[in-house]
Amino acid sequence: MLVRPRNPLNIGAAARAMSNFGFFDLRLVQPYDVAWKEARSAVGASAILDQAQVFPSAAAAIADCSLVVGTASLTHRDARQTVRRLESGARAILRHLPAGPAAILFGSEKHGLSNDDLSLCHFLMHIPTRDEHQSMNLGQAVAVILYELRRNPRAGSRQPRPRKTATATQLQRLEEILMTVLTDSGYLQPKTMASSAAKIRRLLRRMDLPEADAEVWLGMLRQVRWKIESAG
Amino acid sequence: MLVRPRNPLNIGAAARAMSNFGFFDLRLVQPYDVAWKEARSAVGASAILDQAQVFPSAAAAIADCSLVVGTASLTHRDARQTVRRLESGARAILRHLPAGPAAILFGSEKHGLSNDDLSLCHFLMHIPTRDEHQSMNLGQAVAVILYELRRNPRAGSRQPRPRKTATATQLQRLEEILMTVLTDSGYLQPKTMASSAAKIRRLLRRMDLPEADAEVWLGMLRQVRWKIESAG
Repeated sequence: MLVRPRNPLNIGAAARAMSNFGFFDLRLVQPYDVAWKEARSAVGASAILDQAQVFPSAAAAIADCSLVVGTASLTHRDARQTVRRLESGARAILRHLPAGPAAILFGSEKHGLSNDDLSLCHFLMHIPTRDEHQSMNLGQAVAVILYELRRNPRAGSRQPRPRKTATATQLQRLEEILMTVLTDSGYLQPKTMASSAAKIRRLLRRMDLPEADAEVWLGMLRQVRWKIESAG
Repeated sequence: MLVRPRNPLNIGAAARAMSNFGFFDLRLVQPYDVAWKEARSAVGASAILDQAQVFPSAAAAIADCSLVVGTASLTHRDARQTVRRLESGARAILRHLPAGPAAILFGSEKHGLSNDDLSLCHFLMHIPTRDEHQSMNLGQAVAVILYELRRNPRAGSRQPRPRKTATATQLQRLEEILMTVLTDSGYLQPKTMASSAAKIRRLLRRMDLPEADAEVWLGMLRQVRWKIESAG
């Protein structure tokens, strides 16, 4: 998933690497218009670009995914989120796949992923580049990551987790209700609301909730919200 | 080592991947003149491009190397030469290095390596791409191969740093407060209390909470409990 890409060559290169390694579901979030048009009209533009979907926000783009992984260099990392080296991150993705679809988010060439994008991620992943020159070209980073996912064909056949994990939509709903409950209880202050929201989003993702449990939590929190609202 | 590269962007991309992964000796064989000039004058062109050497033939370029490895897709392979998958080829290169310098030859974007170039190689190496779309972009192929050389073969199986998980005492406290909140909200019914308590206990343990997060949840739930009790 490319978030706010600006260079048509990079969009094309990402699609080519996907085709090389057998990944077909390309999604773009707010692509720079001219770049997106140019990439699609390039000679040899692939079926992957034709079928790519465009979304207004990263949250909308990942709605059906139960694992969301951000790519980030170590310098940009948010110390509050788990950052895994690619080798270990790729294994976590492969282990997850039997339980549901996974998204890998790549930020814009210039600014990478925003804090908002990052807060949607279950963990971050970095490619082990040199400290003095960490930042990779977007198309090359996509190629390296997809290669690592395909590298060992047996890596994917490790014991699949028997449970389905919560979808992004479920986590989004949980977040909304929890925010309401905490605001009404006075736990959250209006002036720190934005940073609190990001904290709560990360907190919920670290829980690694099974899908069925997410429904239970939704039910419990709805009841608590009703109680507080009817009493207040 | 790039043999007859034609696209300045690919030359630049190869140099960038080298810099990312810590390889500094770029050599070019008969680069297309215009492309080479353009690559070197590009904004942000690296020290690697500045110091790159140009040779009239592949034989001249590899003169000081004691291992020469060609890159080729499976369809172009010469049956008389050993072709290794990248994973195994990279291991052979790393094993060789203490004995002397190794060269990796990349052919031109259009025609790959010539038979003459191939005959200089100790073995060929291919990236495990999809049969239906084997041919990779040059800059991306360089990135993937250098990544494989730098990848830590043991990093993939290493577990992420063990985090401290919530203690039994924390979970016990969480359970008590959550039970109170859910009872006061009417979510739990007195007659099914025992089985509900067991369900909640399992639910909390499935969350696999980090220790610090457990404290946050305790704080949130205490506030919610206070709100409900003071309102009720």
